[in-house]
Amino acid sequence: MTSEKYSTCIDACNACADACDHCSVACLGEPGVANLGRCIRLDMDCAALCRLAAGFMSRDSEHASSICRACAELCDACAQECEKHDHDHCRQCAQACRDCAAACRDMAA
Amino acid sequence: MTSEKYSTCIDACNACADACDHCSVACLGEPGVANLGRCIRLDMDCAALCRLAAGFMSRDSEHASSICRACAELCDACAQECEKHDHDHCRQCAQACRDCAAACRDMAA
Amino acid sequence: MTSEKYSTCIDACNACADACDHCSVACLGEPGVANLGRCIRLDMDCAALCRLAAGFMSRDSEHASSICRACAELCDACAQECEKHDHDHCRQCAQACRDCAAACRDMAA
Amino acid sequence: MTSEKYSTCIDACNACADACDHCSVACLGEPGVANLGRCIRLDMDCAALCRLAAGFMSRDSEHASSICRACAELCDACAQECEKHDHDHCRQCAQACRDCAAACRDMAA
Repeated sequence: MTSEKYSTCIDACNACADACDHCSVACLGEPGVANLGRCIRLDMDCAALCRLAAGFMSRDSEHASSICRACAELCDACAQECEKHDHDHCRQCAQACRDCAAACRDMAA
Repeated sequence: MTSEKYSTCIDACNACADACDHCSVACLGEPGVANLGRCIRLDMDCAALCRLAAGFMSRDSEHASSICRACAELCDACAQECEKHDHDHCRQCAQACRDCAAACRDMAA
Repeated sequence: MTSEKYSTCIDACNACADACDHCSVACLGEPGVANLGRCIRLDMDCAALCRLAAGFMSRDSEHASSICRACAELCDACAQECEKHDHDHCRQCAQACRDCAAACRDMAA
Repeated sequence: MTSEKYSTCIDACNACADACDHCSVACLGEPGVANLGRCIRLDMDCAALCRLAAGFMSRDSEHASSICRACAELCDACAQECEKHDHDHCRQCAQACRDCAAACRDMAA
């Protein structure tokens, strides 16, 4: 499979998308949701871009590296925001974002 | 994590999306691509719907079951088409589609 | 263009996706966001499914009708929830959802 | 609507996504499909990224400009490839890509 060279990064992107999607709706159920608006918005963006990146890599796209660079930046931003909040889902999401950012940077290098 | 109940099905959907995306571009590189049009088209549809379904489950959506039912049907159709072709990527994609269809049916039940 | 037969429905799906995406983040900025959780969640689901449906129709997919039927149901659910809220973005989103549901039903018929 | 400032670019992205999705399957039906592999692959990438960009703008994302810059580059690549081919769907797709690239650059500026 030509997508083997990407498999670590694809897995990280899928895991990050799932963690972000989960975090977004978990935030919506928190009593302090009024302070979680930016977290939810970055979760939505990050989930969407991670799923896109996984697709680009699975298709061995000539634009996979450039998408992964954009993905790494968004993952960093989302991790930074999630790290401000104490909820388990935010901490798990932050970790998934950090892992994904690292994998995307490795891939794009 | 509320998404734990979905984790088998989410993993199957992510794996199927990646296999379909990979199969679509591998088909485009085959000498017999002229006979692979329907395979490529179903790959494109199936990859997109599997990624959507993973997102719905990760968000614990009230519409996750209904999307998974639609996903199972499309996975079956894609598997059936892929099974007509002898390429490794088609066989691997067919298997991923069969696994995903089963996981989606379990989830929706 | 083979996608001409779908053009009304594609336009309705794109307009609905944009309205849902807009409504989701506008809700996040409302003082009463704590009561808008279900609205935001349905917005996220509906935006994603409408964009998927537009893609299926643009590709003249053999599964376009079945996706449009699922899309009509989700649009109805999202409209019903949005109609409970007085915000302009909710009202505009509800209307876009009603229009999209009707277009999807026409298309699938 | 906060998304009004983006409306020209959102419309261009939606139109480009639809044109790329349509071009990809129309290429699959051409007798010369063996020479259209890169066109189809870029169509798939460009359709996906344009739909993502429309979502980012509809959500007034803080990352909308950076996504639109990436989208403009991919639209240019897709247009350049489509312009090599004489089919109506390729010409229409190339034009939609050029329009979208321009709108994305205006938006990101």
